[in-house]
Amino acid sequence: MEKETARIEGFSDGVFAIAITLLVLELRIPAAESNNNPQALINSLLAQWPSFLAFSLSFFSIFIMWVNHHKMFKQIYRRNSTLMFANGLILFLATCVSYPTALLARYYGTPSVTVAVAVYTGLFVLINLAFNLLWGIASRNRTLLRPEISEVAIKKIRRNYQYGIPVHLSAFLLSFCWPGGALILCAGLWTYWAFTSRKLDLSANLAKRS
Amino acid sequence: MEKETARIEGFSDGVFAIAITLLVLELRIPAAESNNNPQALINSLLAQWPSFLAFSLSFFSIFIMWVNHHKMFKQIYRRNSTLMFANGLILFLATCVSYPTALLARYYGTPSVTVAVAVYTGLFVLINLAFNLLWGIASRNRTLLRPEISEVAIKKIRRNYQYGIPVHLSAFLLSFCWPGGALILCAGLWTYWAFTSRKLDLSANLAKRS
Amino acid sequence: MEKETARIEGFSDGVFAIAITLLVLELRIPAAESNNNPQALINSLLAQWPSFLAFSLSFFSIFIMWVNHHKMFKQIYRRNSTLMFANGLILFLATCVSYPTALLARYYGTPSVTVAVAVYTGLFVLINLAFNLLWGIASRNRTLLRPEISEVAIKKIRRNYQYGIPVHLSAFLLSFCWPGGALILCAGLWTYWAFTSRKLDLSANLAKRS
Amino acid sequence: MEKETARIEGFSDGVFAIAITLLVLELRIPAAESNNNPQALINSLLAQWPSFLAFSLSFFSIFIMWVNHHKMFKQIYRRNSTLMFANGLILFLATCVSYPTALLARYYGTPSVTVAVAVYTGLFVLINLAFNLLWGIASRNRTLLRPEISEVAIKKIRRNYQYGIPVHLSAFLLSFCWPGGALILCAGLWTYWAFTSRKLDLSANLAKRS
Repeated sequence: MEKETARIEGFSDGVFAIAITLLVLELRIPAAESNNNPQALINSLLAQWPSFLAFSLSFFSIFIMWVNHHKMFKQIYRRNSTLMFANGLILFLATCVSYPTALLARYYGTPSVTVAVAVYTGLFVLINLAFNLLWGIASRNRTLLRPEISEVAIKKIRRNYQYGIPVHLSAFLLSFCWPGGALILCAGLWTYWAFTSRKLDLSANLAKRS
Repeated sequence: MEKETARIEGFSDGVFAIAITLLVLELRIPAAESNNNPQALINSLLAQWPSFLAFSLSFFSIFIMWVNHHKMFKQIYRRNSTLMFANGLILFLATCVSYPTALLARYYGTPSVTVAVAVYTGLFVLINLAFNLLWGIASRNRTLLRPEISEVAIKKIRRNYQYGIPVHLSAFLLSFCWPGGALILCAGLWTYWAFTSRKLDLSANLAKRS
Repeated sequence: MEKETARIEGFSDGVFAIAITLLVLELRIPAAESNNNPQALINSLLAQWPSFLAFSLSFFSIFIMWVNHHKMFKQIYRRNSTLMFANGLILFLATCVSYPTALLARYYGTPSVTVAVAVYTGLFVLINLAFNLLWGIASRNRTLLRPEISEVAIKKIRRNYQYGIPVHLSAFLLSFCWPGGALILCAGLWTYWAFTSRKLDLSANLAKRS
Repeated sequence: MEKETARIEGFSDGVFAIAITLLVLELRIPAAESNNNPQALINSLLAQWPSFLAFSLSFFSIFIMWVNHHKMFKQIYRRNSTLMFANGLILFLATCVSYPTALLARYYGTPSVTVAVAVYTGLFVLINLAFNLLWGIASRNRTLLRPEISEVAIKKIRRNYQYGIPVHLSAFLLSFCWPGGALILCAGLWTYWAFTSRKLDLSANLAKRS
């Protein structure tokens, strides 16, 4: 069976690639006048560490989103309008990531950081809902999936992403009392996804062989 | 018959993907000094709602444009120069969307909003004319289309997009007396297109089978 | 024979698509305070016409560059390092277009316009040299081209682009005494290319059949 | 054997294409008021030469990164999670290039230039480590590579990139006493890579035939 989703994947890859690269526009070089004072320039560069941290964290998060998107669409062979709009929602939210990233970079280290981290983690709650929605639509209607996919592989993918909502929700709540901890929790989940992505592949391949 | 339009579709997808993602650059974090006052930050975030609304509306509109473009090019197999320039016109207008979006975000809630909404809806009148032009060129010259396409499917696609011009023209006129209503009218049409896109697919597939 | 240049074309399409879309970032909404005065907003929008003109002209020019690039690479099947760097030079110059576009938008209607137009037309002299270089490299080494291409088709493509250098050079010289005329000359050549692109296609196809 | 890495290459090409094109956003037209004084405009354009130099150098460096990436992935046929994240690291660092480019453009010709050049060359040390990591992962696990690749070709690619770390490290150290020399050293290495990329191709093709 021919894959019908090639152009959706191409367009999505384009949006992910642009969203991940536009993040760097928030990294602005220090405005302070340091022409004749290299030490002052070093200090103002180092003072920008929240910007670098926010940029790296968001780059990593969009990259994980792309990896997850890639893995789901490896199993999706046909499309319908509902699937296209669930995918559009994911792209919309991926595009939005740069806004809370800028908030985080701007307010880290100030008392207003809780608001920034709450917006940041809140967006990832929505992103997880959208990914679960996409996989729900694709797996409810088996005709959309790769014909040889096993029931076990479908469930494994669903279970992997269902961790996302409670963890990001906890991070959202945690952001009000310990903003740094909320970000660590998010980064931890993304690292977990990075390491388990291999296992998902294996189980999908096993399903293919059997 | 081999599809000759692959590189045009790839380039168009690139432009749509960038145009839709660049919209986020208009979402700028509040400039107000709210370091020590989380409540003030929340207030200035909430005060940005016209920016969020304009961003969401324009994201949705370019996404619908991409879906429509996708559907038309599923039926277009060959290209000529006229088709390439009609497509170039669509890409030009898609790129322009960010300008009236910024106007809308900036002037919403002020007496100048009528001008912003008139420019916004006016651009969509032009976009509709360009889509009708593209389909007109493609369907006039049957050698450009997928060989198996039926006359009924061609007409259905044309009829679907012909709603666009009168509705957007009405929205343009409405913008001078009720700007909010003009935007609701546009969003309504786009939602209608989102829901009817499935039916077009079905009729095209039926034409394929018969 | 398999086409070896697919990934070069994909990367080039990406750069052209981004360069053409980034032009819109130079279209900035009027900064003047016109909240309560719709007529003042209309006036400041109309006063931006040089920006719209420069944006449209540059969009058209990059689109023509992409069409020409597309046509050349339809005949190029293999690649070597020289070809890759000639292509890299074209992409570099295409990326640069936004800079003189911003100059043109900023200085149109002032006595400094000659400098802006000279930089603008000067860049297109370089772009033409780069396109001639690419086609020179590709056609000198027949093993890089589509095996069935005829000697007549190769010469026709070369002749078509050789008009570019003298016309853009004339536009460059004209820019010092009649800047508007220099832009009209450029736009005229691009329109000519838009209309003759069909003929090139036909001759290439004829060569294919014989 | 089918190539499994097509979507990774597509996404990477997208990120490289955007990173290379976004560099131009750092080229800002002179802010000085030169409406009535063409000579003043010419002078302020010429005074921007560090910006043009930094832009050209970084464009060239990302282009060479893309060429190298292209060459490596021509030999990589399968992917695993480690490979995907090594590739993600390369994309992250490629995206970062615009930041030290802006630093270089801003501080060239001031006593603070050493800091800017040290950050710039330091980033390329990291980029080289990431490329060596990618090739190390790919070549350690022969099942990831093109089945027909010879041991000689694998070693040749590794050796070619191993020059990168000591040269960029030397450039980093040199930046503290002779910043201009550090940039010349980098540009020299990239030019060397541009010229040797053909030889790598040949040896890979020879390996293919034997």
